[in-house]
Amino acid sequence: MRTWKFTLAYEGTAYVGWQRQLHGASIQGCLEEALAPLVGGPVAVAGAGRTDAGVHALAQVASLRMERDIGPPALVRAVNARLPADIRLTQAEVAAETFHARFDATAKTYRYRILQGPVASPFARRYGWYLSAAPDRDLMAAAARLLVGEHDFAAFQAAGSSTHTTVRTLHSIEVASPAADPGLIDERLGGDVMTIEVRGAGFVRHMVRIVVGTLVDVGLQRLRLQDIEQALRTGRRSAAGRTAPPQGLFLVRVDY
Amino acid sequence: MRTWKFTLAYEGTAYVGWQRQLHGASIQGCLEEALAPLVGGPVAVAGAGRTDAGVHALAQVASLRMERDIGPPALVRAVNARLPADIRLTQAEVAAETFHARFDATAKTYRYRILQGPVASPFARRYGWYLSAAPDRDLMAAAARLLVGEHDFAAFQAAGSSTHTTVRTLHSIEVASPAADPGLIDERLGGDVMTIEVRGAGFVRHMVRIVVGTLVDVGLQRLRLQDIEQALRTGRRSAAGRTAPPQGLFLVRVDY
Repeated sequence: MRTWKFTLAYEGTAYVGWQRQLHGASIQGCLEEALAPLVGGPVAVAGAGRTDAGVHALAQVASLRMERDIGPPALVRAVNARLPADIRLTQAEVAAETFHARFDATAKTYRYRILQGPVASPFARRYGWYLSAAPDRDLMAAAARLLVGEHDFAAFQAAGSSTHTTVRTLHSIEVASPAADPGLIDERLGGDVMTIEVRGAGFVRHMVRIVVGTLVDVGLQRLRLQDIEQALRTGRRSAAGRTAPPQGLFLVRVDY
Repeated sequence: MRTWKFTLAYEGTAYVGWQRQLHGASIQGCLEEALAPLVGGPVAVAGAGRTDAGVHALAQVASLRMERDIGPPALVRAVNARLPADIRLTQAEVAAETFHARFDATAKTYRYRILQGPVASPFARRYGWYLSAAPDRDLMAAAARLLVGEHDFAAFQAAGSSTHTTVRTLHSIEVASPAADPGLIDERLGGDVMTIEVRGAGFVRHMVRIVVGTLVDVGLQRLRLQDIEQALRTGRRSAAGRTAPPQGLFLVRVDY
């Protein structure tokens, strides 16, 4: 019996999200079905982060205890041969016996992509949130500074969620404008890319997308910095900003 | 009455190609339907290049003579509001009265993207041809030099095509390895990108894709340089290489 650590990249467009659900294809379900013939029976993998419908991952992590003795490269090839093209196993490693992808995660990093320009690129629409107006980056960075640290993020949780506690710690939020996409596909379309990287120990439901929507609303002067302070103080969802759409969000790293 | 020059970007994945056909959605058909309410009746646009099903464009050009008096920015906004998100009008200009997108084109440039690495990126699969083995770039460049110039490209034409003449002039073929995709989406997947840029006055059917497939077959040592000379000399389709798949091909420029 060995415990495996799998790293996965996927485009979430066609899926109900990471987690197996009653209706619709899930990333977890596809991975479990691809592993079943190797394991020789039903499989239940544990995932580090439950990405929502339409959300992508560059490096989601999943764990599984498995009898079958097989080398990592052969396992990667066999699983990828059975996975759909929008999900790829990028790495498989033998982990410590007790390793669990969710419980052992110490931090997760999400990246959100915002696209801005006169016309929305047809090649980027699945991988970003297109805005016709440019949000002010300095205002966004100032808003981000108010959110870093330990806070009650009740106002940054999807309506209707119920969790034991909504106190979470955000380690960092970085608002950056990397050089535009490298021209290989997009150069003529000339849009700008802004990324928001959020690192934290844990997140309430939709938290990263509501944080991003709130930063954008501040950057477009639809909200003020005082509104953020009020949202943190009162915990009222209506005091925070919009929920940014899922297609801009990528799970980029899980720390252990 | 004014003659318009339109520039379009599109992702061809969902379409039967540029040209209107009996069955299936075409780029031309979508553009004509989006223009119809502005023109006030049926519209027939002329396109510079008839891209195949699944082929993309960064800057396809189309022309139309139209009565309606409207400013370019308002026209771009109105047409984009009616086009599906995978087709965007990026520019509209008033052209010389006699301008015709196809007949006046003096050269067209196509770019082909080849992706190579241990695992095929789920984010790049619609925009490139994934190869698990790396083709030799020097061999490809040597093969490309044999094809540049005026030749009978009968062997580089889709089987079953009938054209008056298969003599064409290729101005240049450039095989390049730009820096990998900029990490915004792909950095973890660590693949390499190779581009093949083909510029010519005109092309027979599937010519760019057969040229690319032939260069790749030479780069993988499935064909020799002598095979290319033989293909040019005999005009036999079977002497040339594979037809590269459509999703790697982009129409990037039309010269007038």
